[in-house]
Amino acid sequence: SSPMDHHNRGRQKFMEFPYVSAPHRNLMVDLVSTVETRLDSQLQPCTLPPDVQYFENPSGTSQASLQIRYGHNSSMIDFLLGSWIHSELPTGGALNITSLSAYLNTSTDAPNLLIELIQIKPTALVLILDLPPRKDLVLYPEYLHTFYENTQLESRRQRLEKLQEVQPYVPSSLYIRVTSPTAILISINTEGGDVGRMEEIVKNHMDPVAKEVLGIWLDQCTCGGREVAESEKPYLEKRDGLYKNKTIEIDLGSSFPRLFGPQVAGRVLAAIPRSTFDI
Amino acid sequence: SSPMDHHNRGRQKFMEFPYVSAPHRNLMVDLVSTVETRLDSQLQPCTLPPDVQYFENPSGTSQASLQIRYGHNSSMIDFLLGSWIHSELPTGGALNITSLSAYLNTSTDAPNLLIELIQIKPTALVLILDLPPRKDLVLYPEYLHTFYENTQLESRRQRLEKLQEVQPYVPSSLYIRVTSPTAILISINTEGGDVGRMEEIVKNHMDPVAKEVLGIWLDQCTCGGREVAESEKPYLEKRDGLYKNKTIEIDLGSSFPRLFGPQVAGRVLAAIPRSTFDI
Repeated sequence: SSPMDHHNRGRQKFMEFPYVSAPHRNLMVDLVSTVETRLDSQLQPCTLPPDVQYFENPSGTSQASLQIRYGHNSSMIDFLLGSWIHSELPTGGALNITSLSAYLNTSTDAPNLLIELIQIKPTALVLILDLPPRKDLVLYPEYLHTFYENTQLESRRQRLEKLQEVQPYVPSSLYIRVTSPTAILISINTEGGDVGRMEEIVKNHMDPVAKEVLGIWLDQCTCGGREVAESEKPYLEKRDGLYKNKTIEIDLGSSFPRLFGPQVAGRVLAAIPRSTFDI
Repeated sequence: SSPMDHHNRGRQKFMEFPYVSAPHRNLMVDLVSTVETRLDSQLQPCTLPPDVQYFENPSGTSQASLQIRYGHNSSMIDFLLGSWIHSELPTGGALNITSLSAYLNTSTDAPNLLIELIQIKPTALVLILDLPPRKDLVLYPEYLHTFYENTQLESRRQRLEKLQEVQPYVPSSLYIRVTSPTAILISINTEGGDVGRMEEIVKNHMDPVAKEVLGIWLDQCTCGGREVAESEKPYLEKRDGLYKNKTIEIDLGSSFPRLFGPQVAGRVLAAIPRSTFDI
Protein backbone atom coordinates (compact mmCIF):
# COMPACT_ATOMS: atom_id res chain seq x y z
CA SER A 1 0.00 0.00 0.00
CA SER A 2 1.14 3.57 -0.68
CA PRO A 3 2.32 6.07 1.97
CA MET A 4 -0.89 8.02 1.30
CA ASP A 5 -2.96 4.97 2.32
CA HIS A 6 -0.96 4.75 5.55
CA HIS A 7 -1.59 8.39 6.19
CA ASN A 8 -5.31 8.12 5.55
CA ARG A 9 -5.70 5.04 7.69
CA GLY A 10 -3.74 6.60 10.56
CA ARG A 11 -5.76 9.77 10.40
CA GLN A 12 -9.07 7.90 10.20
CA LYS A 13 -8.17 5.83 13.25
CA PHE A 14 -7.18 8.99 15.13
CA MET A 15 -10.46 10.74 14.35
CA GLU A 16 -12.48 7.82 15.72
CA PHE A 17 -11.74 8.79 19.34
CA PRO A 18 -13.19 5.45 20.44
CA TYR A 19 -14.21 4.41 23.96
CA VAL A 20 -15.14 7.94 25.12
CA SER A 21 -18.68 9.33 25.39
CA ALA A 22 -20.38 10.90 22.37
CA PRO A 23 -20.10 14.51 23.67
CA HIS A 24 -16.41 13.94 24.48
CA ARG A 25 -15.78 12.47 21.00
CA ASN A 26 -17.75 15.24 19.26
CA LEU A 27 -15.74 17.87 21.11
CA MET A 28 -12.40 16.37 20.10
CA VAL A 29 -13.46 15.88 16.46
CA ASP A 30 -14.70 19.47 16.30
CA LEU A 31 -11.51 20.87 17.85
CA VAL A 32 -9.21 18.93 15.52
CA SER A 33 -11.32 19.76 12.45
CA THR A 34 -11.43 23.45 13.34
CA VAL A 35 -7.66 23.70 13.78
CA GLU A 36 -6.93 21.70 10.62
CA THR A 37 -9.40 23.64 8.49
CA ARG A 38 -8.10 26.97 9.70
CA LEU A 39 -4.38 26.17 9.47
CA ASP A 40 -4.63 23.77 6.52
CA SER A 41 -2.33 25.67 4.15
CA GLN A 42 0.36 25.87 6.85
CA LEU A 43 0.45 22.16 7.73
CA GLN A 44 2.25 19.20 6.25
CA PRO A 45 0.58 15.77 6.37
CA CYS A 46 1.46 13.41 9.21
CA THR A 47 4.46 11.33 8.23
CA LEU A 48 4.79 9.13 11.29
CA PRO A 49 5.30 5.43 10.56
CA PRO A 50 2.04 3.43 10.66
CA ASP A 51 3.09 1.60 13.85
CA VAL A 52 3.45 4.96 15.60
CA GLN A 53 0.23 6.42 14.24
CA TYR A 54 -1.54 3.49 15.88
CA PHE A 55 -0.13 1.07 18.42
CA GLU A 56 -1.07 -1.40 21.15
CA ASN A 57 0.68 -3.11 24.01
CA PRO A 58 1.53 -6.82 23.54
CA SER A 59 -1.62 -8.02 25.34
CA GLY A 60 -3.88 -5.56 23.51
CA THR A 61 -5.27 -3.99 26.68
CA SER A 62 -3.78 -0.58 25.81
CA GLN A 63 -4.28 1.17 22.49
CA ALA A 64 -3.30 4.56 21.20
CA SER A 65 -3.34 6.79 18.17
CA LEU A 66 -0.92 9.62 17.47
CA GLN A 67 -0.86 12.31 14.81
CA ILE A 68 1.89 14.88 14.34
CA ARG A 69 1.70 17.48 11.62
CA TYR A 70 4.66 19.81 11.15
CA GLY A 71 4.17 23.31 9.86
CA HIS A 72 5.67 24.38 6.55
CA ASN A 73 8.91 26.34 6.88
CA SER A 74 7.14 29.56 5.99
CA SER A 75 4.40 29.08 8.61
CA MET A 76 4.25 29.98 12.29
CA ILE A 77 3.50 26.39 13.30
CA ASP A 78 6.24 24.21 14.68
CA PHE A 79 3.93 21.20 14.98
CA LEU A 80 0.47 20.02 15.94
CA LEU A 81 0.20 16.94 18.16
CA GLY A 82 -3.04 14.97 18.61
CA SER A 83 -3.53 11.73 20.46
CA TRP A 84 -5.89 9.36 22.13
CA ILE A 85 -4.97 6.64 24.59
CA HIS A 86 -7.20 3.87 25.86
CA SER A 87 -6.04 1.55 28.61
CA GLU A 88 -7.99 -1.08 30.48
CA LEU A 89 -7.29 -0.87 34.18
CA PRO A 90 -6.47 -3.98 36.22
CA THR A 91 -9.13 -2.84 38.69
CA GLY A 92 -11.79 -2.80 35.95
CA GLY A 93 -12.83 0.24 33.98
CA ALA A 94 -10.47 2.12 31.70
CA LEU A 95 -8.32 5.21 31.40
CA ASN A 96 -9.03 7.37 28.34
CA ILE A 97 -6.88 10.35 27.44
CA THR A 98 -7.51 12.58 24.43
CA SER A 99 -5.34 15.56 23.61
CA LEU A 100 -4.60 18.26 21.10
CA SER A 101 -1.62 20.59 21.42
CA ALA A 102 0.08 23.06 19.13
CA TYR A 103 3.60 24.43 19.35
CA LEU A 104 4.46 27.61 17.47
CA ASN A 105 7.93 28.38 16.08
CA THR A 106 10.18 31.37 16.74
CA SER A 107 8.69 33.54 14.00
CA THR A 108 6.19 34.52 16.73
CA ASP A 109 6.27 34.63 20.53
CA ALA A 110 2.51 34.05 20.87
CA PRO A 111 1.31 31.33 23.28
CA ASN A 112 0.99 27.64 22.43
CA LEU A 113 -2.20 25.59 22.75
CA LEU A 114 -2.86 22.71 25.15
CA ILE A 115 -6.09 20.73 25.46
CA GLU A 116 -6.21 17.45 27.35
CA LEU A 117 -9.14 15.42 28.66
CA ILE A 118 -8.34 12.59 31.05
CA GLN A 119 -11.21 10.23 31.82
CA ILE A 120 -10.45 8.12 34.86
CA LYS A 121 -13.94 6.61 34.98
CA PRO A 122 -17.32 7.52 33.47
CA THR A 123 -18.02 9.85 36.41
CA ALA A 124 -14.54 11.41 36.74
CA LEU A 125 -12.86 13.62 34.18
CA VAL A 126 -9.88 15.98 34.28
CA LEU A 127 -9.64 18.92 31.88
CA ILE A 128 -6.42 20.78 31.12
CA LEU A 129 -7.03 23.74 28.84
CA ASP A 130 -4.43 26.47 28.51
CA LEU A 131 -2.57 28.76 26.20
CA PRO A 132 0.88 28.13 27.73
CA PRO A 133 2.90 31.37 27.66
CA ARG A 134 6.20 31.40 25.79
CA LYS A 135 7.66 34.23 27.84
CA ASP A 136 8.19 34.86 31.54
CA LEU A 137 5.05 36.73 32.62
CA VAL A 138 6.77 38.52 35.50
CA LEU A 139 9.31 39.99 33.12
CA TYR A 140 6.80 40.74 30.33
CA PRO A 141 3.60 42.27 31.79
CA GLU A 142 2.71 43.51 28.28
CA TYR A 143 2.55 39.87 27.14
CA LEU A 144 0.28 39.02 30.07
CA HIS A 145 -1.91 41.97 29.20
CA THR A 146 -2.15 41.13 25.48
CA PHE A 147 -2.82 37.41 25.63
CA TYR A 148 -4.46 36.84 29.01
CA GLU A 149 -6.15 40.04 30.20
CA ASN A 150 -7.37 41.50 26.88
CA THR A 151 -8.70 38.14 25.70
CA GLN A 152 -10.94 37.66 28.72
CA LEU A 153 -9.72 34.11 29.18
CA GLU A 154 -10.48 34.47 32.89
CA SER A 155 -14.24 34.61 32.25
CA ARG A 156 -14.05 31.19 30.55
CA ARG A 157 -12.15 29.73 33.48
CA GLN A 158 -14.73 31.08 35.90
CA ARG A 159 -17.67 29.65 33.95
CA LEU A 160 -16.35 26.14 34.50
CA GLU A 161 -15.03 26.76 38.00
CA LYS A 162 -18.45 27.73 39.34
CA LEU A 163 -20.03 24.36 38.50
CA GLN A 164 -20.82 22.38 41.62
CA GLU A 165 -19.07 19.23 40.34
CA VAL A 166 -15.81 21.05 39.59
CA GLN A 167 -12.70 20.95 41.78
CA PRO A 168 -9.26 22.40 41.00
CA TYR A 169 -6.86 19.84 39.55
CA VAL A 170 -3.27 20.00 40.77
CA PRO A 171 -0.79 18.09 38.56
CA SER A 172 1.74 16.05 40.53
CA SER A 173 4.66 17.44 38.49
CA LEU A 174 5.68 20.94 39.64
CA TYR A 175 7.03 21.70 36.15
CA ILE A 176 3.67 20.94 34.52
CA ARG A 177 2.03 23.28 37.07
CA VAL A 178 3.82 26.28 35.58
CA THR A 179 0.87 27.35 33.45
CA SER A 180 -0.72 30.64 32.51
CA PRO A 181 -2.69 32.50 35.23
CA THR A 182 -5.94 31.74 33.39
CA ALA A 183 -5.20 28.04 32.85
CA ILE A 184 -8.16 25.73 33.33
CA LEU A 185 -7.00 22.80 35.43
CA ILE A 186 -10.10 21.11 36.77
CA SER A 187 -11.34 17.78 37.97
CA ILE A 188 -15.02 17.01 37.42
CA ASN A 189 -16.74 14.44 39.57
CA THR A 190 -20.35 13.39 39.14
CA GLU A 191 -20.12 10.50 41.53
CA GLY A 192 -23.42 9.71 43.17
CA GLY A 193 -24.95 11.40 40.15
CA ASP A 194 -25.27 9.50 36.91
CA VAL A 195 -23.08 9.26 33.83
CA GLY A 196 -25.69 11.42 32.08
CA ARG A 197 -24.72 14.40 34.20
CA MET A 198 -21.08 14.08 33.12
CA GLU A 199 -22.11 13.97 29.45
CA GLU A 200 -24.27 17.03 30.05
CA ILE A 201 -21.33 18.92 31.58
CA VAL A 202 -19.04 17.98 28.68
CA LYS A 203 -21.67 18.98 26.09
CA ASN A 204 -23.13 22.12 27.64
CA HIS A 205 -20.19 23.57 29.55
CA MET A 206 -16.83 22.11 28.56
CA ASP A 207 -17.55 22.03 24.81
CA PRO A 208 -18.40 25.74 24.38
CA VAL A 209 -15.57 26.92 26.66
CA ALA A 210 -12.96 24.75 24.89
CA LYS A 211 -14.14 26.02 21.51
CA GLU A 212 -14.00 29.65 22.66
CA VAL A 213 -10.47 29.20 23.98
CA LEU A 214 -9.43 27.55 20.72
CA GLY A 215 -11.03 30.46 18.85
CA ILE A 216 -9.02 32.95 20.91
CA TRP A 217 -5.85 31.02 20.16
CA LEU A 218 -6.57 30.87 16.42
CA ASP A 219 -7.52 34.56 16.22
CA GLN A 220 -4.91 36.05 18.54
CA CYS A 221 -1.95 33.70 18.33
CA THR A 222 -1.77 32.29 14.80
CA CYS A 223 -2.43 35.42 12.76
CA GLY A 224 0.96 37.07 13.15
CA GLY A 225 1.51 40.66 14.12
CA ARG A 226 4.13 39.67 16.69
CA GLU A 227 7.49 40.20 15.07
CA VAL A 228 10.29 38.59 17.04
CA ALA A 229 13.61 40.42 16.83
CA GLU A 230 16.55 38.27 15.77
CA SER A 231 18.21 39.10 19.09
CA GLU A 232 15.28 37.56 21.00
CA LYS A 233 15.13 34.31 19.04
CA PRO A 234 17.84 32.46 20.99
CA TYR A 235 15.90 33.11 24.23
CA LEU A 236 12.67 31.85 22.70
CA GLU A 237 14.36 28.86 21.12
CA LYS A 238 15.97 27.85 24.38
CA ARG A 239 12.76 28.25 26.37
CA ASP A 240 10.61 26.46 23.77
CA GLY A 241 13.12 23.63 23.61
CA LEU A 242 13.12 23.14 27.37
CA TYR A 243 9.33 23.34 27.53
CA LYS A 244 8.82 20.79 24.74
CA ASN A 245 11.37 18.33 26.08
CA LYS A 246 10.16 18.58 29.68
CA THR A 247 6.42 18.38 28.93
CA ILE A 248 6.82 15.43 26.53
CA GLU A 249 9.19 13.72 28.96
CA ILE A 250 6.90 14.20 31.95
CA ASP A 251 3.61 13.61 30.13
CA LEU A 252 4.48 10.67 27.88
CA GLY A 253 7.90 9.52 29.06
CA SER A 254 6.52 8.25 32.35
CA SER A 255 3.18 6.80 31.24
CA PHE A 256 4.02 5.18 27.88
CA PRO A 257 6.39 2.50 29.22
CA ARG A 258 3.87 1.63 31.92
CA LEU A 259 0.91 1.44 29.52
CA PHE A 260 2.55 -0.08 26.43
CA GLY A 261 5.65 -1.89 27.65
CA PRO A 262 9.23 -0.69 27.13
CA GLN A 263 9.59 -1.87 23.52
CA VAL A 264 6.49 -0.19 22.06
CA ALA A 265 7.03 2.91 24.20
CA GLY A 266 10.63 3.19 23.03
CA ARG A 267 9.63 2.98 19.38
CA VAL A 268 6.89 5.60 19.75
CA LEU A 269 8.86 8.04 21.91
CA ALA A 270 11.77 7.92 19.45
CA ALA A 271 9.39 9.17 16.74
CA ILE A 272 8.11 12.16 18.73
CA PRO A 273 9.93 15.41 17.95
CA ARG A 274 12.30 16.63 20.62
CA SER A 275 14.05 19.89 20.58
CA THR A 276 17.53 19.76 19.15
CA PHE A 277 18.52 22.11 21.94
CA ASP A 278 21.05 20.43 24.15
CA ILE A 279 19.74 20.30 27.71
CA SER B 1 12.00 63.28 70.95
CA SER B 2 14.95 61.54 69.29
CA PRO B 3 14.88 59.51 66.06
CA MET B 4 15.52 56.41 68.16
CA ASP B 5 12.33 57.09 70.16
CA HIS B 6 10.39 57.36 66.90
CA HIS B 7 11.87 54.09 65.77
CA ASN B 8 11.04 52.30 69.00
CA ARG B 9 7.48 53.63 69.12
CA GLY B 10 6.87 52.65 65.47
CA ARG B 11 8.23 49.19 66.00
CA GLN B 12 6.28 48.69 69.21
CA LYS B 13 3.05 49.71 67.50
CA PHE B 14 3.80 47.35 64.62
CA MET B 15 4.42 44.38 66.90
CA GLU B 16 1.05 44.90 68.62
CA PHE B 17 -0.87 43.39 65.67
CA PRO B 18 -4.10 44.62 67.23
CA TYR B 19 -7.66 43.59 66.31
CA VAL B 20 -6.75 40.08 65.18
CA SER B 21 -7.22 36.88 67.19
CA ALA B 22 -4.54 35.73 69.66
CA PRO B 23 -3.33 32.81 67.49
CA HIS B 24 -3.12 35.14 64.46
CA ARG B 25 -1.16 37.76 66.48
CA ASN B 26 1.13 35.13 68.00
CA LEU B 27 1.92 33.76 64.56
CA MET B 28 2.82 37.19 63.16
CA VAL B 29 4.94 38.14 66.21
CA ASP B 30 6.79 34.81 66.02
CA LEU B 31 7.43 35.15 62.27
CA VAL B 32 8.74 38.72 62.56
CA SER B 33 10.86 37.89 65.59
CA THR B 34 12.35 34.81 63.92
CA VAL B 35 13.32 36.72 60.77
CA GLU B 36 14.73 39.67 62.71
CA THR B 37 16.71 37.50 65.11
CA ARG B 38 18.18 35.41 62.34
CA LEU B 39 19.00 38.27 59.98
CA ASP B 40 19.74 40.87 62.65
CA SER B 41 23.34 41.63 61.66
CA GLN B 42 22.28 42.17 58.03
CA LEU B 43 19.45 44.64 58.72
CA GLN B 44 19.36 48.40 59.22
CA PRO B 45 16.74 49.90 61.54
CA CYS B 46 13.49 51.18 60.06
CA THR B 47 13.95 54.81 59.08
CA LEU B 48 10.44 55.58 57.82
CA PRO B 49 8.96 58.87 59.13
CA PRO B 50 6.71 58.37 62.18
CA ASP B 51 3.56 59.26 60.18
CA VAL B 52 4.35 56.42 57.77
CA GLN B 53 5.25 53.90 60.45
CA TYR B 54 1.75 54.45 61.82
CA PHE B 55 -1.16 56.23 60.13
CA GLU B 56 -4.93 56.55 60.10
CA ASN B 57 -7.55 57.88 57.72
CA PRO B 58 -9.10 61.28 58.64
CA SER B 59 -12.12 59.70 60.34
CA GLY B 60 -10.01 57.16 62.24
CA THR B 61 -11.89 54.12 60.91
CA SER B 62 -8.78 52.79 59.16
CA GLN B 63 -5.40 52.33 60.85
CA ALA B 64 -2.15 50.85 59.69
CA SER B 65 1.41 50.20 60.74
CA LEU B 66 4.34 49.79 58.37
CA GLN B 67 7.94 48.74 58.94
CA ILE B 68 10.66 48.63 56.30
CA ARG B 69 14.17 47.51 57.13
CA TYR B 70 16.80 47.71 54.40
CA GLY B 71 19.69 45.27 54.33
CA HIS B 72 23.24 46.49 54.73
CA ASN B 73 25.15 46.84 51.47
CA SER B 74 27.17 43.74 52.21
CA SER B 75 24.07 41.61 52.92
CA MET B 76 21.80 39.62 50.59
CA ILE B 77 18.72 41.48 51.80
CA ASP B 78 17.23 44.25 49.70
CA PHE B 79 14.53 44.98 52.27
CA LEU B 80 12.06 43.47 54.71
CA LEU B 81 8.51 44.84 54.69
CA GLY B 82 6.02 44.22 57.49
CA SER B 83 2.56 45.70 57.89
CA TRP B 84 -0.80 45.46 59.50
CA ILE B 85 -3.96 47.20 58.33
CA HIS B 86 -7.25 47.48 60.19
CA SER B 87 -10.30 48.97 58.52
CA GLU B 88 -13.85 49.13 59.78
CA LEU B 89 -16.27 48.12 57.06
CA PRO B 90 -19.39 50.22 56.32
CA THR B 91 -21.36 46.98 56.49
CA GLY B 92 -20.11 46.31 60.04
CA GLY B 93 -17.18 44.12 60.91
CA ALA B 94 -13.65 44.90 59.85
CA LEU B 95 -10.93 44.00 57.39
CA ASN B 96 -7.60 43.01 58.94
CA ILE B 97 -4.49 42.39 56.86
CA THR B 98 -1.13 41.39 58.30
CA SER B 99 1.91 40.77 56.15
CA LEU B 100 5.61 40.05 56.12
CA SER B 101 7.64 39.98 52.93
CA ALA B 102 11.34 39.94 52.13
CA TYR B 103 13.07 40.94 48.93
CA LEU B 104 16.60 39.74 48.28
CA ASN B 105 19.16 41.66 46.23
CA THR B 106 21.11 40.58 43.16
CA SER B 107 23.99 39.06 45.11
CA THR B 108 21.76 35.93 45.08
CA ASP B 109 19.00 34.63 42.81
CA ALA B 110 17.26 32.71 45.62
CA PRO B 111 13.48 33.20 46.05
CA ASN B 112 11.86 36.01 48.03
CA LEU B 113 9.42 35.52 50.91
CA LEU B 114 5.74 36.44 51.02
CA ILE B 115 3.34 35.90 53.90
CA GLU B 116 -0.04 37.61 54.03
CA LEU B 117 -3.12 36.94 56.15
CA ILE B 118 -6.33 38.68 55.13
CA GLN B 119 -9.17 38.46 57.61
CA ILE B 120 -12.47 39.45 56.02
CA LYS B 121 -14.51 38.46 59.06
CA PRO B 122 -13.88 36.32 62.14
CA THR B 123 -14.93 33.20 60.20
CA ALA B 124 -13.20 33.99 56.88
CA LEU B 125 -9.45 34.22 56.36
CA VAL B 126 -7.22 34.19 53.28
CA LEU B 127 -3.62 32.98 53.50
CA ILE B 128 -0.97 33.77 50.90
CA LEU B 129 2.29 32.00 51.65
CA ASP B 130 4.94 31.63 48.99
CA LEU B 131 8.61 31.83 48.14
CA PRO B 132 8.15 33.81 44.90
CA PRO B 133 10.72 32.63 42.35
CA ARG B 134 13.15 35.18 40.93
CA LYS B 135 13.74 33.27 37.73
CA ASP B 136 11.50 31.88 35.00
CA LEU B 137 10.83 28.30 36.09
CA VAL B 138 10.25 27.03 32.54
CA LEU B 139 13.69 28.24 31.52
CA TYR B 140 15.44 27.15 34.73
CA PRO B 141 14.25 23.66 35.78
CA GLU B 142 17.32 23.38 38.02
CA TYR B 143 15.99 26.35 40.03
CA LEU B 144 12.60 24.66 40.36
CA HIS B 145 14.32 21.49 41.50
CA THR B 146 16.55 23.22 44.07
CA PHE B 147 14.04 25.50 45.75
CA TYR B 148 10.66 23.83 45.23
CA GLU B 149 11.15 20.08 44.74
CA ASN B 150 14.11 19.41 47.05
CA THR B 151 12.61 21.50 49.85
CA GLN B 152 9.37 19.49 49.96
CA LEU B 153 7.31 22.69 49.99
CA GLU B 154 4.51 20.72 48.31
CA SER B 155 3.93 18.62 51.42
CA ARG B 156 3.24 21.82 53.41
CA ARG B 157 0.76 23.03 50.80
CA GLN B 158 -1.04 19.71 50.89
CA ARG B 159 -1.31 19.67 54.70
CA LEU B 160 -3.39 22.85 54.57
CA GLU B 161 -5.25 21.99 51.36
CA LYS B 162 -6.73 18.83 52.83
CA LEU B 163 -8.56 20.66 55.64
CA GLN B 164 -12.31 20.59 55.10
CA GLU B 165 -12.68 24.35 55.59
CA VAL B 166 -10.04 25.21 52.97
CA GLN B 167 -10.78 26.35 49.42
CA PRO B 168 -8.29 27.59 46.81
CA TYR B 169 -7.96 31.38 46.71
CA VAL B 170 -7.66 32.96 43.26
CA PRO B 171 -6.37 36.58 43.33
CA SER B 172 -8.26 38.90 40.99
CA SER B 173 -5.02 40.27 39.51
CA LEU B 174 -3.51 37.91 36.92
CA TYR B 175 -0.05 39.33 37.65
CA ILE B 176 -0.31 38.44 41.35
CA ARG B 177 -1.33 34.91 40.33
CA VAL B 178 2.09 34.26 38.84
CA THR B 179 3.40 32.44 41.89
CA SER B 180 5.56 29.41 42.51
CA PRO B 181 4.01 25.98 41.81
CA THR B 182 3.94 25.25 45.54
CA ALA B 183 2.39 28.57 46.54
CA ILE B 184 -0.23 28.37 49.27
CA LEU B 185 -3.19 30.51 48.21
CA ILE B 186 -6.12 29.47 50.29
CA SER B 187 -9.37 30.78 51.66
CA ILE B 188 -10.54 29.36 54.98
CA ASN B 189 -14.20 29.52 55.89
CA THR B 190 -15.61 28.31 59.19
CA GLU B 191 -19.03 29.76 58.60
CA GLY B 192 -21.73 27.85 60.42
CA GLY B 193 -18.95 26.74 62.72
CA ASP B 194 -17.75 29.02 65.47
CA VAL B 195 -14.90 31.52 65.65
CA GLY B 196 -13.15 28.98 67.87
CA ARG B 197 -12.68 26.64 64.94
CA MET B 198 -10.93 29.39 62.95
CA GLU B 199 -8.57 30.09 65.84
CA GLU B 200 -7.89 26.38 66.09
CA ILE B 201 -7.01 26.20 62.37
CA VAL B 202 -4.68 29.20 62.66
CA LYS B 203 -2.98 27.81 65.76
CA ASN B 204 -2.74 24.11 64.91
CA HIS B 205 -2.40 24.14 61.12
CA MET B 206 -1.47 27.52 59.68
CA ASP B 207 1.05 28.41 62.40
CA PRO B 208 3.28 25.32 62.03
CA VAL B 209 3.15 25.36 58.22
CA ALA B 210 4.01 29.08 58.01
CA LYS B 211 6.92 28.59 60.40
CA GLU B 212 8.23 25.62 58.42
CA VAL B 213 8.08 27.59 55.17
CA LEU B 214 9.87 30.50 56.82
CA GLY B 215 12.48 28.06 58.12
CA ILE B 216 13.03 26.72 54.59
CA TRP B 217 13.42 30.26 53.30
CA LEU B 218 15.91 31.20 56.04
CA ASP B 219 17.93 27.99 55.61
CA GLN B 220 17.89 27.66 51.82
CA CYS B 221 17.58 31.21 50.53
CA THR B 222 19.43 33.54 52.90
CA CYS B 223 22.59 31.54 53.49
CA GLY B 224 24.32 32.17 50.19
CA GLY B 225 25.90 29.55 47.99
CA ARG B 226 24.17 30.94 44.89
CA GLU B 227 26.76 33.08 43.17
CA VAL B 228 25.18 35.25 40.49
CA ALA B 229 27.46 35.92 37.51
CA GLU B 230 27.91 39.60 36.65
CA SER B 231 26.42 38.85 33.23
CA GLU B 232 23.18 37.63 34.83
CA LYS B 233 22.69 40.60 37.15
CA PRO B 234 20.97 42.89 34.64
CA TYR B 235 18.33 40.18 34.01
CA LEU B 236 17.74 39.70 37.72
CA GLU B 237 17.68 43.44 38.37
CA LYS B 238 15.12 44.04 35.65
CA ARG B 239 12.89 41.17 36.76
CA ASP B 240 13.13 42.11 40.46
CA GLY B 241 12.34 45.71 39.62
CA LEU B 242 9.24 44.82 37.64
CA TYR B 243 8.08 42.38 40.30
CA LYS B 244 8.51 44.89 43.15
CA ASN B 245 6.85 47.75 41.30
CA LYS B 246 3.93 45.68 40.07
CA THR B 247 3.22 43.87 43.33
CA ILE B 248 3.40 47.06 45.41
CA GLU B 249 1.31 48.92 42.83
CA ILE B 250 -1.36 46.20 42.67
CA ASP B 251 -1.36 45.30 46.36
CA LEU B 252 -1.11 48.72 47.99
CA GLY B 253 -1.65 51.21 45.16
CA SER B 254 -5.27 50.22 44.73
CA SER B 255 -6.33 49.67 48.34
CA PHE B 256 -4.52 52.48 50.19
CA PRO B 257 -6.38 55.41 48.56
CA ARG B 258 -9.69 53.65 49.21
CA LEU B 259 -8.91 52.84 52.84
CA PHE B 260 -6.99 55.95 53.90
CA GLY B 261 -8.00 58.71 51.49
CA PRO B 262 -5.79 60.12 48.72
CA GLN B 263 -3.68 62.39 50.93
CA VAL B 264 -2.57 59.84 53.51
CA ALA B 265 -2.19 57.16 50.82
CA GLY B 266 -0.02 59.47 48.71
CA ARG B 267 2.29 60.25 51.64
CA VAL B 268 2.70 56.59 52.58
CA LEU B 269 3.12 55.24 49.06
CA ALA B 270 5.79 57.85 48.34
CA ALA B 271 7.82 56.47 51.25
CA ILE B 272 7.70 52.85 50.06
CA PRO B 273 10.76 51.81 48.06
CA ARG B 274 10.22 51.37 44.36
CA SER B 275 12.72 50.02 41.99
CA THR B 276 14.80 52.67 40.31
CA PHE B 277 14.50 50.59 37.18
CA ASP B 278 12.66 52.58 34.55
CA ILE B 279 9.54 50.69 33.46
